[in-house]
Amino acid sequence: NSKLKVFSLNSNEGLAEEITEHIGVHMGKCSVQRFSDGEIQINIEESIRGGEVYVIQSTSSPVNENLMELLIMIDALKRASAKTINVVIPYYGYARQDRKARSREPITAKLVANLLETAGATRVISMDLHAPQIQGFFDIPVDQLLAVPTLANYFESKNLDDIVVVSPDHGGVTRARKMADRLKAPIAIIDKRRPRPNVSEVMNIVGNIEGKTAILIDDIIDTAGTITLAANALIENGATEVYACCSHPVLSGPAIERIQNSKIKELVVTNTIELPEEKFIDKLTQLSVAPLLGEAIIRVHEQQSVSKLFD
Amino acid sequence: NSKLKVFSLNSNEGLAEEITEHIGVHMGKCSVQRFSDGEIQINIEESIRGGEVYVIQSTSSPVNENLMELLIMIDALKRASAKTINVVIPYYGYARQDRKARSREPITAKLVANLLETAGATRVISMDLHAPQIQGFFDIPVDQLLAVPTLANYFESKNLDDIVVVSPDHGGVTRARKMADRLKAPIAIIDKRRPRPNVSEVMNIVGNIEGKTAILIDDIIDTAGTITLAANALIENGATEVYACCSHPVLSGPAIERIQNSKIKELVVTNTIELPEEKFIDKLTQLSVAPLLGEAIIRVHEQQSVSKLFD
Ligand SMILES: Nc1ncnc2c1ncn2[C@@H]1O[C@H](COP(=O)(O)O)[C@@H](O)[C@H]1O
Ligand SMILES: Nc1ncnc2c1ncn2[C@@H]1O[C@H](COP(=O)(O)O)[C@@H](O)[C@H]1O
Repeated sequence: NSKLKVFSLNSNEGLAEEITEHIGVHMGKCSVQRFSDGEIQINIEESIRGGEVYVIQSTSSPVNENLMELLIMIDALKRASAKTINVVIPYYGYARQDRKARSREPITAKLVANLLETAGATRVISMDLHAPQIQGFFDIPVDQLLAVPTLANYFESKNLDDIVVVSPDHGGVTRARKMADRLKAPIAIIDKRRPRPNVSEVMNIVGNIEGKTAILIDDIIDTAGTITLAANALIENGATEVYACCSHPVLSGPAIERIQNSKIKELVVTNTIELPEEKFIDKLTQLSVAPLLGEAIIRVHEQQSVSKLFD
Repeated sequence: NSKLKVFSLNSNEGLAEEITEHIGVHMGKCSVQRFSDGEIQINIEESIRGGEVYVIQSTSSPVNENLMELLIMIDALKRASAKTINVVIPYYGYARQDRKARSREPITAKLVANLLETAGATRVISMDLHAPQIQGFFDIPVDQLLAVPTLANYFESKNLDDIVVVSPDHGGVTRARKMADRLKAPIAIIDKRRPRPNVSEVMNIVGNIEGKTAILIDDIIDTAGTITLAANALIENGATEVYACCSHPVLSGPAIERIQNSKIKELVVTNTIELPEEKFIDKLTQLSVAPLLGEAIIRVHEQQSVSKLFD
């Protein structure tokens, strides 16, 4: 078996450290800096010739900086004769631009896939892609890991009574169903509808939530508009408590303020995206996906199935 | 002849406006914005189906933002059925990473070329590439324009006496020679050498500069260390006045302060890079390359030779 090497770029150093500890390898040495004019300067400081390399980098904010770091690192690894270049992208940025919603829009999620392949990536490991179709944007193998087991374990350990798992929109029902299976709970769906144009949306709840503990689940929480409105609607309609969880805590703009002021009792997220200190409000719990990603890297390296991780 | 369309992104809007005025076309309508989390959102707001499109964007600082804007715009144009996608990159960022200076370094200038082609560019028009070899990094046609005629015309109009054109290093001698031909002047070269390791460099001047008006010429002035040391050495060695000029005023970090405090009488640059107001010191003169780029676009569109522009 060729040598397994793990490198971290700047987006998620904490997570990457945890992953190397889990696997039991040292962190690969490389310097990732900026020239005076802002151009990225990368130098790999140990031989990786013939090595099987894993580079850990979320394309979270600042997305363009983080993506370019990753592309330049892949180029450097390729030219340094890496045998395989496996990019571990816990959070895949631009995933929401996965189709032409209007005429003459880009499909940036596909562009990013092409850029990664052009740079020289030979495999992608990611988590909860906004649309599973993004796997098909690549011509190289893609492993998609899921945060549901990690999130479900946490809620199980809380021993909550009379749970209902709630999807905040139609797009997330499959995810809610997976969570509900793990928690042996029923599901409900927030069914937003705009009765007429220019009239605000009505939050209709499909399923029984009265007197129950609701757990809202989404893949990405960005400005937190959807999730906080959903939480408040659940309380108004008779839920006793509302928890919320997601894989990717983007939490941009007004997100933290909205969550703080909402009826959400606790927000449970993973560390696919590193959060600055000011976002660690009391309500927020961050779970580590390092054991999951570490296990996935070991399995890929040993040519075993990654889907076994979810049995 | 298909319809010629010009679009500008965010790096050089002033230059792009001037170019459309020169050509006599209206500026293509598109919106280039940021989502709340910093992801780029582009929408092209007029039909470009079958059109020959020119997109103007320097990959100057913030280089990664500007490059990603350009790549995403190219993707959008391709999906909107543009016939050709000609990218006009007055300043090509990452050009100095054009070779492996040390082991395990990337060659980012080549990576950028691959990314542009992958996105869908069909032709590149650029100015004073740091190394002419960068043209060979592309498998699509590349037109390289030169700032020397623009800069030389300006110095000619000043009617300076007894000029010598000086290259600040060995790499720039060809450029200095071109300038000297235009100005009918001799050349000199600053021949930096380190006599022993860990001893500071000695500025040896090859050529006669005594009693002359020196014009230093470089392609990029970034932190301005080289050019200001060269200017001071020229004065110390008997030049009466020193002018400096370059194509691309990167002017990062201490550049402005160094220029201000140096013996340079006037610094003449072009507008391949848009400068913020605080960099417009009294010593600085910025010449427009809009007529040159506009003429090049017309010639490319009419399938005429661009090199004719330099006769
Ligand atoms: N970074 C972003 N922030 C907010 N909205 C986005 C972002 N990227 C894409 N979108 C929009 O989100 C929509 C896709 O989200 P969804 O319907 O949940 O798949 C599209 O209409 C996009 O225009
Ligand atoms: N953005 C940059 N700022 C400063 N130096 C750079 C930059 N990009 C590359 N370099 C270095 O500049 C050298 C190339 O410059 P040159 O020898 O003038 O072609 C290489 O050794 C690079 O490491």
